[in-house]
Amino acid sequence: MLELSTKTISLSTDGFNHIINITPQLEKFLRESDFVEGTMLVFVPGATAGITTIEFENGLVKDLKDFFEKLVPMNGHYYHNDTWHDGNGYAHVRAAMLKPNLLIPFANKRLCLGTWQQVVLIDFDNRPRKRELVLQLTGKLAFDGSD
Amino acid sequence: MLELSTKTISLSTDGFNHIINITPQLEKFLRESDFVEGTMLVFVPGATAGITTIEFENGLVKDLKDFFEKLVPMNGHYYHNDTWHDGNGYAHVRAAMLKPNLLIPFANKRLCLGTWQQVVLIDFDNRPRKRELVLQLTGKLAFDGSD
Amino acid sequence: MLELSTKTISLSTDGFNHIINITPQLEKFLRESDFVEGTMLVFVPGATAGITTIEFENGLVKDLKDFFEKLVPMNGHYYHNDTWHDGNGYAHVRAAMLKPNLLIPFANKRLCLGTWQQVVLIDFDNRPRKRELVLQLTGKLAFDGSD
Repeated sequence: MLELSTKTISLSTDGFNHIINITPQLEKFLRESDFVEGTMLVFVPGATAGITTIEFENGLVKDLKDFFEKLVPMNGHYYHNDTWHDGNGYAHVRAAMLKPNLLIPFANKRLCLGTWQQVVLIDFDNRPRKRELVLQLTGKLAFDGSD
Repeated sequence: MLELSTKTISLSTDGFNHIINITPQLEKFLRESDFVEGTMLVFVPGATAGITTIEFENGLVKDLKDFFEKLVPMNGHYYHNDTWHDGNGYAHVRAAMLKPNLLIPFANKRLCLGTWQQVVLIDFDNRPRKRELVLQLTGKLAFDGSD
Repeated sequence: MLELSTKTISLSTDGFNHIINITPQLEKFLRESDFVEGTMLVFVPGATAGITTIEFENGLVKDLKDFFEKLVPMNGHYYHNDTWHDGNGYAHVRAAMLKPNLLIPFANKRLCLGTWQQVVLIDFDNRPRKRELVLQLTGKLAFDGSD
């Protein structure tokens, strides 16, 4: 028999492709819950940010920023900017490609991540932002008599 | 105690990177169900289309088409075209990158999307297509005595 | 009433963007289970591999390798390489973009994939690797009296 639990966590970002390691918050949510086996959904509402996993070290963080800048330059021409004149068209394109969701399995009350693999939020927007991430645990509880 | 419900929805696309806002269909499925909290999976069977979220406005739709054309040009050389001679190798590469799935949390019977964030199907194929999307709700029902 | 089942499968890869069709293993896991309707999560722990779907034929496999090489060249400069000197910075960037997870619905005990759509692991690392993929089934069992 399965259960489900939803939580939101608040984050302040610097924008401008700020890459934030959110793994500690995910591990805390799991540790303080009664879930032992299942999946954790991580979702960032909004159209200018995304979620993925990386080895969170300074070199790779720079590489990833360089990659996105080369792929979708901040100062390129975007029709979206003609619509709203807020200059973050690049952020929308990057976020559409990276997508706002990630699903991670857990077992024995631990996220099934690799040793050097962390979960990160990337905020592509061109200003500091408050973000409210949605986390959802679905799975089996400890001491579930039905199992 | 959780339940699950599966539905397919049919869409006609123009192909050629047609970007379709499917948020109304997703909201309808949720509204007409008994689910109040959980996750909605959106999946497009087929290897030439993908699902993501964007702010659905004309400028950004153009930007996203331009982005994919620059990244994986329709008229580039693709070995896949040598295999089948149907000329949609570019569509396969784009779809492999964007992926056919998206998972969105919902709570209080509402999808946890940002104010300007819509869910879109992008059909990369080089002809009009019929698509049968699979939607799945997993979560808690209203008036669930066990909760 | 829903249930959940977790399994790991071991794969040996050649590294260097080895693309492996893992659909048979996924179908076997589903077939040998009691699940009839739900979702299958596929997740690869580690920061240098990803999961997606493609039409698995030689031409497209070549196209996809060419695409990643053009997008994130193996011999480019990566700060990550300055940190560890293991030369796989490119693999980390590609994996961050493709992401390690995929969620596939199933119904009537069959994965809802397109006729020509297979699930693949792409190992971007620059050496052969052992990978332990995590598979999770969530959904309804056959002969579930509560349904």
